[in-house]
Amino acid sequence: MRLSKTFIKTLRTAPKDETATNGALLTRAGYIHKEMAGVYDYLPLGLLTIEKIKNIIREELNAIGCEEVLMSALQNPELWEATGRFSDQEVDIWFKTELSAGGVLGLAPTHEEPMVEMMKNYVSSYKDLPLYVYQFQTKFRNELRAKSGIMRGREFLMKDLYSFHTSEEDLDEFYGKVEGAYKKIFERLGLGDSTYETFASGGIFAKFSHEYQTILPVGEDTIYYNKDKSLVLNKEVFTPEVLADFGVDAKDFTETRGAEVGNIFKLKFKYSEPLGLKYATEDNKSEFVYMGCYGIGVSRVMGVIAEKFADDKGLVWPEAVAPFKYYLVGIGEDGTRKTEGIYAEHKDEILFDDRDVRPGEKFADSELMGIPQRIVISDKTLASGGAEVTNRATGETKIVDLKELFV
Amino acid sequence: MRLSKTFIKTLRTAPKDETATNGALLTRAGYIHKEMAGVYDYLPLGLLTIEKIKNIIREELNAIGCEEVLMSALQNPELWEATGRFSDQEVDIWFKTELSAGGVLGLAPTHEEPMVEMMKNYVSSYKDLPLYVYQFQTKFRNELRAKSGIMRGREFLMKDLYSFHTSEEDLDEFYGKVEGAYKKIFERLGLGDSTYETFASGGIFAKFSHEYQTILPVGEDTIYYNKDKSLVLNKEVFTPEVLADFGVDAKDFTETRGAEVGNIFKLKFKYSEPLGLKYATEDNKSEFVYMGCYGIGVSRVMGVIAEKFADDKGLVWPEAVAPFKYYLVGIGEDGTRKTEGIYAEHKDEILFDDRDVRPGEKFADSELMGIPQRIVISDKTLASGGAEVTNRATGETKIVDLKELFV
Repeated sequence: MRLSKTFIKTLRTAPKDETATNGALLTRAGYIHKEMAGVYDYLPLGLLTIEKIKNIIREELNAIGCEEVLMSALQNPELWEATGRFSDQEVDIWFKTELSAGGVLGLAPTHEEPMVEMMKNYVSSYKDLPLYVYQFQTKFRNELRAKSGIMRGREFLMKDLYSFHTSEEDLDEFYGKVEGAYKKIFERLGLGDSTYETFASGGIFAKFSHEYQTILPVGEDTIYYNKDKSLVLNKEVFTPEVLADFGVDAKDFTETRGAEVGNIFKLKFKYSEPLGLKYATEDNKSEFVYMGCYGIGVSRVMGVIAEKFADDKGLVWPEAVAPFKYYLVGIGEDGTRKTEGIYAEHKDEILFDDRDVRPGEKFADSELMGIPQRIVISDKTLASGGAEVTNRATGETKIVDLKELFV
Repeated sequence: MRLSKTFIKTLRTAPKDETATNGALLTRAGYIHKEMAGVYDYLPLGLLTIEKIKNIIREELNAIGCEEVLMSALQNPELWEATGRFSDQEVDIWFKTELSAGGVLGLAPTHEEPMVEMMKNYVSSYKDLPLYVYQFQTKFRNELRAKSGIMRGREFLMKDLYSFHTSEEDLDEFYGKVEGAYKKIFERLGLGDSTYETFASGGIFAKFSHEYQTILPVGEDTIYYNKDKSLVLNKEVFTPEVLADFGVDAKDFTETRGAEVGNIFKLKFKYSEPLGLKYATEDNKSEFVYMGCYGIGVSRVMGVIAEKFADDKGLVWPEAVAPFKYYLVGIGEDGTRKTEGIYAEHKDEILFDDRDVRPGEKFADSELMGIPQRIVISDKTLASGGAEVTNRATGETKIVDLKELFV
């Protein structure tokens, strides 16, 4: 991408009401634009980052046999009334609207109900199971407050996966596979070292659910971890009873803050029973389908990564999610000519700062935008033997022969 | 994709309230699932088709310098009040909702207002222009009736492009480029022969706008075309006055039905003026930005293609938008073994019917699903010299040497 051709500019200031670091930096660096609290637009660089995050998740889910769909935001209340979740007393984050033809609709905050209802068309026999269906979908949640940038959206992108099984054993086995996939996903996203599978409240159908918590000072959750971080507990289950269950002592745990980037949950019959999702067993008995659900907040993950790695100069993207791997700057006649040649051959990997502005401004923008490697070519670098390559995360600089740049 | 592994099944019947051919066939073939009138989910094959349509549009827009973003559905009324478009009297298809923190929000039926407001951050000088910004975004329109399957959605996917210019000449020039891009897009979508740029009412700011109408018996518009189809007029401008303007005679025109798949519109200052999108000229005068907007209904296009090419056996996809190019069936031990080998090498192009069902059921499903080429390998076809390849559109069948299948 040529910066001279894009409409994006880095901005000196973020909106006055933007209190979150991720929101302010992503806005200033030209990744997002704020519509209102918790509602953001994704600009070209932001959309590229979102797509990279989605593709990492997609690859790992497809690898364990999951299938991608896309469901609607508009919701028929009937299904949600069957599970008791349409009432504002039960679920207090609904956006509701009126159909002009008559009747109330909801904007889906999650998709268990329509997913189960849809699967009634496709599941009839044990032979049809197991099934694993996911989507990347824009969810709507009518949050009273939304002050965490893209880490807490009223409109946000989520990956939600639902699994369907004939037995608890089969559910358990697939649940384990998702744990494996999530481990790979958070590693590839650059959050592997700081993201922990955390025990959280399981609601009324299971003792625990699992959250994926990324350690982050501005995270909304309080979590406790033991010395080797082999056991991490959300505050809501950090009770004497639970600690006794695990045979551990509260004094061996350290309190910290976490941002929940994912969660996985054994639903069992919670939705299949009220909505009547059944299958015929081998001996032709009619049984409810076992279910699990597995979320990752895609736009939240982008906010967490932004927040976690940022420094005083701006964003610092891990390579796998950066919109471009290289930020290219030419200085002087020779440098500019050589960068044009390099850009022509590696367009997809390069954010090319071909603007008519001072090198210092280009360097500052490359840092604010957080592109992993900056390549500068000038008379000086050429005299030193090639291009100057600077690593955004470490600040390390080296001279690289032009022929070695993309090998 | 292996049919034995996907949750999709072809269905014998569509929902009782599904009156549109596209909706019924796409449902029966496992591409979509109906949530309510005008609201559909996209199943794996449907999502693949949508993505192919998006990619064709994306490629042609990127080729003329457009940049992709993604804006929010939730809308702050303020911007729309500035243009007079928040009132239900002016725009009667709003879905509105209440923010729990207080205040009414709208769900965007289109995006001129937020787009213009956002660009105020990025446009200040003539040097910043022209700019071309588009998105693929889910629109919400509170239609009183929605009986046309995915051809008229209450929630639907649209590509909307907005252009920003310093002069009417520059707007005109870019408008011409979009006309060129649209011609290529509809050709690549398989609709080139049947889609015409059509004069329609321009509202109060221009004499005409242009619609792209695909000739279709169930289309919602009445259009008139002359003998060589060099002039096509929407009924709304098929008036004695307009005919006189063009120097043509009503009797030389034929009436037919069209489905509007796209539209392009010179907005000039319609939104930049009330919202205050201005730029500084070379001699530092402050002027309003000229604008154009350019839509294509992505999910509608999918419905139109489904509707247009369907026959009594089911869907018939043009190759460029088919979820898979080949439908593969093995019969008998040798045939099955050979299809497994072929599938392993060409997974991305093949919908592999490896289910344990009769060949006749597989053939019927391949036709219902509308996959362009069916490859059957059996003892009989092997004895004849290879695989039997059947063209879904023409019904033409030939024997192809296995080595020649994917060359």
